[in-house]
Amino acid sequence: MTGPAEIHAHIYPQDRVSLREVGLRDGLQLVKAFPSSAAKHEWLVREHAAGVRHFEVGSFLPASRMPQFADVRDMIAAVSSLGGARSAALALNERGAADAVGTGLDEIVCVVSATEEHSQANMHRSRREAVELVGKVARLRDEKGHKAIVNAGISMAFGCSIAGEVDPAEVLRLAEACLVAGADIVGIADTVGFAGPRQVAELTAAMARLCGKHPFIVHLHDTRGMGIANASAALDAGCRVLDGSLGGLGGCPFAPGATGNVVFEDLVFLCETKGFPTGIDLDALMGARSIAESEMPDEQFYGSIARAGAPRVVAWRA
Amino acid sequence: MTGPAEIHAHIYPQDRVSLREVGLRDGLQLVKAFPSSAAKHEWLVREHAAGVRHFEVGSFLPASRMPQFADVRDMIAAVSSLGGARSAALALNERGAADAVGTGLDEIVCVVSATEEHSQANMHRSRREAVELVGKVARLRDEKGHKAIVNAGISMAFGCSIAGEVDPAEVLRLAEACLVAGADIVGIADTVGFAGPRQVAELTAAMARLCGKHPFIVHLHDTRGMGIANASAALDAGCRVLDGSLGGLGGCPFAPGATGNVVFEDLVFLCETKGFPTGIDLDALMGARSIAESEMPDEQFYGSIARAGAPRVVAWRA
Repeated sequence: MTGPAEIHAHIYPQDRVSLREVGLRDGLQLVKAFPSSAAKHEWLVREHAAGVRHFEVGSFLPASRMPQFADVRDMIAAVSSLGGARSAALALNERGAADAVGTGLDEIVCVVSATEEHSQANMHRSRREAVELVGKVARLRDEKGHKAIVNAGISMAFGCSIAGEVDPAEVLRLAEACLVAGADIVGIADTVGFAGPRQVAELTAAMARLCGKHPFIVHLHDTRGMGIANASAALDAGCRVLDGSLGGLGGCPFAPGATGNVVFEDLVFLCETKGFPTGIDLDALMGARSIAESEMPDEQFYGSIARAGAPRVVAWRA
Repeated sequence: MTGPAEIHAHIYPQDRVSLREVGLRDGLQLVKAFPSSAAKHEWLVREHAAGVRHFEVGSFLPASRMPQFADVRDMIAAVSSLGGARSAALALNERGAADAVGTGLDEIVCVVSATEEHSQANMHRSRREAVELVGKVARLRDEKGHKAIVNAGISMAFGCSIAGEVDPAEVLRLAEACLVAGADIVGIADTVGFAGPRQVAELTAAMARLCGKHPFIVHLHDTRGMGIANASAALDAGCRVLDGSLGGLGGCPFAPGATGNVVFEDLVFLCETKGFPTGIDLDALMGARSIAESEMPDEQFYGSIARAGAPRVVAWRA
């Protein structure tokens, strides 16, 4: 394994659960009308006040292609100004990586597709080239003496919208290749929400064996209603870093009308009921949700805690 | 344990999962406008064609109190006319039980509250009296030579909207008392959706120890979005009989705006991804859902499979 273990332990301690809020990146990927920078900033501040510490805030892509992330530098600066908060953003090519290390970004996120078909269709690169890019990003980071860690996420890790079934051995091979190439942390993503809890448990357990004492990330979508069950399975199988988005914001380009990421608020509730304190206040999180909802009135927000509230009369925290 | 084991094995075989559709009972408990008997019949026929075999279809209460179940006898007869289908209905007092054994009902469902407070408030009986009623129902069934099995469900088993926390030992004590009194099968219900998967796993495992080779039921609500995760935990812990309602129909009287039972369609998907064949066709189930939706246009129907469909390109059945 590459990357100093003490850095990982500091950022994503393995003795507790860390929740990464990806609503400001994955959540905004498909929205029809983008929130203003001011609203995104307020969303961030409110979530930070609620206890959220890990924010994925955008992607280094040309603003012409992804205008919702044109303010990614401002968002990174905004995260930096909040005590203890850490920013992550996607760099999907060399130019994006060069841009990223010109900012105060804490985590550069690279993506490697689990299948050759999806890699070519989505990234116009082979999987080998995508893994090589992870190495280039890590070297660039080192050359610039930049502080960011490099996060390599394996997309379509549980099934591919193009190639169909995905061999878990291929996912593990790619994750290991990313670590060898210089990634500090790897993740597995159910990009289109194909997985069930048994599949998540099996691949998560294999990732735990691969990563040893190093943390790794499980990124889930709720496309088919399995998001929370899959998160529960991932926790049971040893994952301690999970992604979610406020209100489950974010759709799925391959399943029209489908929900997005696993709902962040419900994920907090799940963790607490399982005896993993998150340090996140659910009521305060609802304030952040209100900001996002009022800024994007045409978007569907999901989540049962927002609807029903946490149980009032029961000590539901395990 | 009372009740002939071979009957249980026939009705709820422990080597596979049985799903009980409670939409026509629990799902209709709080709806604003009731579906017509004709629509309920069509719903039943469609679900049966999709492969559903266990139907909870009403409650033996005065029609003045629960007009949506005024046609419970017709519904029981309708189930009887479908090959291999089994009907269940609630009998919450002596008169209800007497009425039940006057029909072709296959399963008489009794309810015992986990807490004294809820028992008194909801049933106007002590828990002891509720357990005694289970015994009376079983004896009445025997006296009449009726075929029905007696199912005793422990409501509020994971937390009570009145008393708050519930001691799992009390739930187990009550479940055992019901079996001793004559229940053929017992169940635990998260009536108000307070549970998380860890709590479900623990109580389910304890129930599995209590019931040995006999089946038992876990009845979950999705009030706080944990329904599918809880069902997954129950399956992992050894439960083989789960309740759900079409479209997650049915609210929660103690959490306004909350969802109802765990969504039947998503439950089918969960089971299949976990390697438990249900014998239920998801596409055909959507036809039944259309009936219910068009009959109750003011009700909110839930479920992710209805929204996104099962994955088309992946062999998602484990």
